[in-house]
Amino acid sequence: MNSKPYKPSRPVYILSAGSVTGQKEKRGPLGRCFDLSGDDRFGKESWEKAESEMQRLAVGIAMRKAGFRTDEMDALFAGDLINQCTSSSYGLLSYRIPFLGLFGACSTCAEGLLMAAVYLGSGGFDRAAAVTSSHYCSAERQFRFPLEYGGQRPPTAQWTVTGAGAFVLSAAARDSVRCTVPFLPEITEVLPGCIVDRGINDANNMGAAMAPAAADTLERYFRGTGSSPEQFDLIVTGDLGREGSAILNDLLAVRGIDVVKNHVDCGTMIYAEKESDTHAGGSGCGCSAVVLAADLLENIRSGVLKDILFVGTGALMNPLSLNQGQNIPGIAHLVRIHGVPRKKLCQQETEVSHHADTP
Amino acid sequence: MNSKPYKPSRPVYILSAGSVTGQKEKRGPLGRCFDLSGDDRFGKESWEKAESEMQRLAVGIAMRKAGFRTDEMDALFAGDLINQCTSSSYGLLSYRIPFLGLFGACSTCAEGLLMAAVYLGSGGFDRAAAVTSSHYCSAERQFRFPLEYGGQRPPTAQWTVTGAGAFVLSAAARDSVRCTVPFLPEITEVLPGCIVDRGINDANNMGAAMAPAAADTLERYFRGTGSSPEQFDLIVTGDLGREGSAILNDLLAVRGIDVVKNHVDCGTMIYAEKESDTHAGGSGCGCSAVVLAADLLENIRSGVLKDILFVGTGALMNPLSLNQGQNIPGIAHLVRIHGVPRKKLCQQETEVSHHADTP
Repeated sequence: MNSKPYKPSRPVYILSAGSVTGQKEKRGPLGRCFDLSGDDRFGKESWEKAESEMQRLAVGIAMRKAGFRTDEMDALFAGDLINQCTSSSYGLLSYRIPFLGLFGACSTCAEGLLMAAVYLGSGGFDRAAAVTSSHYCSAERQFRFPLEYGGQRPPTAQWTVTGAGAFVLSAAARDSVRCTVPFLPEITEVLPGCIVDRGINDANNMGAAMAPAAADTLERYFRGTGSSPEQFDLIVTGDLGREGSAILNDLLAVRGIDVVKNHVDCGTMIYAEKESDTHAGGSGCGCSAVVLAADLLENIRSGVLKDILFVGTGALMNPLSLNQGQNIPGIAHLVRIHGVPRKKLCQQETEVSHHADTP
Repeated sequence: MNSKPYKPSRPVYILSAGSVTGQKEKRGPLGRCFDLSGDDRFGKESWEKAESEMQRLAVGIAMRKAGFRTDEMDALFAGDLINQCTSSSYGLLSYRIPFLGLFGACSTCAEGLLMAAVYLGSGGFDRAAAVTSSHYCSAERQFRFPLEYGGQRPPTAQWTVTGAGAFVLSAAARDSVRCTVPFLPEITEVLPGCIVDRGINDANNMGAAMAPAAADTLERYFRGTGSSPEQFDLIVTGDLGREGSAILNDLLAVRGIDVVKNHVDCGTMIYAEKESDTHAGGSGCGCSAVVLAADLLENIRSGVLKDILFVGTGALMNPLSLNQGQNIPGIAHLVRIHGVPRKKLCQQETEVSHHADTP
């Protein structure tokens, strides 16, 4: 198996992002960073339609920030937790952009960025968007119980984030030189994960089910590249929560890899500690997507973060498979994001145009 | 929007395929072409587990035919119709190959080939597999009624194929020169589709829901490339069935595109006409996958077919979305497959090695 990450053969930049959340997320420590926060319905008559609407809004915000029209986009990578990924298909119906559906459970944000980076890196396409979402109410009634039941959950349980995060990416030099921020986020490497099953079958402990997959991908990355955790400003997982994060640190420690100092998890960043019922933290496709869109990318743009590993983690199960006695396999996809100084982009452009002038 | 198809920057070949089906498919006109046909359980205690097992078997057969071990594969693209794509995640758990989950409903076979072609064409990876499946019993009870209910279905309804089709692809020159068949199938172009909604909301007429998407993608392809239907030996959709195929022909005719002479649909090829209850034909992710794997690719290898357009069509809905009053949007992804004469591959290899010898 190839454990060398893929490096796009031409630079792929994340030009812009859009984040849309519910009120519980708005009350959290990142609340003021989100582009838009609404109630649990977003003007629609069902939670499922509200989730679709959040995806539509997030993509619209990201495209508007990048200054692109729908007909200037080459592809839209999208997926979510709802059966047959309908939050994406209905939400994005109004955008006439070639659509590629993904299913990576809560790793979908990372999977979408990974696929977009390969797609644009291939040279065949210039611009793509990636989007994903989750909604506490639509997920809870699909995966667990009717909300009216008011079921209690153990401390290892995580709270599904109501949120959608979208990203506009480009590999066109004409786009990156228009950059007005001090640092432009570039996807420099991606590494797809393998499915890992370590026998966890507790639907209230997704962190434990996904942590082995995150450890597997990170170990493959560090061994494959010969790099070490301290070379990165942050190693961000999304979303293991407090329980899964502790397990990840332990699993990597026994393999001689110490990530304790610079590891954070999106699930532990999104809610205030005093926020009721969030227990081990946030989860759902929307969690890592809105944390990346609203917080991490902003810190890369300003230069606070220079180089991060973003590792999306997903649990590949459904309620029926658990009823049939199956375990919960996990997966983790890795995306390395680096901030490129604006000066360097302008130099590159000058070099490119000089080169183009040469007969 | 970019309506030019993507041409991989280096040749991407389909080296081998594996097809696994149930008994109803075995009795059909392509029955003797399938690699393996079993009962509806494949030795497992549930239909869902049987569907996973079919995926595992199909990938194993395709890898064995190509002569590859698991650790020689760079990526596995997979998806299916079951909630959260668990047929893929559990079925492929035993293969330690980087896994990228897709959701394209019945277009998943084409979407997987498209993504694999871009992935390998990018130059970052050498070998990938794509696999998908469906199972009449697991689909019926998830999307419609318990099987015991014995619900009757109208003539426009299609029968979900019990089957899994897998493909092993390579962009490594060392693989293609080992080719022993007269013609090696190459993916020369791919074009991702847009989501199209024309107001169909009858869950028993998926052909009508998906035909507008197939027409949209084919029209974009012919306009974008300046080509016309008669340049291809076959234009294969999967799976519109008899109803959807008639609608597709009509929709294209009014746009001045005549595909009647060389259009076929996988859903109308898989079952014998006298087979009970199959009505408008076959459907499900497995339908186009096993027809391509067992029949179309074989005809390309032998030289009967030289150049085909394979258009996978999917309906992006779930039962809840229909209950909430939504329509059934469709999508269609296009993959062009061309048979390259073995002689030409050997010449290419000689040229490559001559070139490599030049100091």
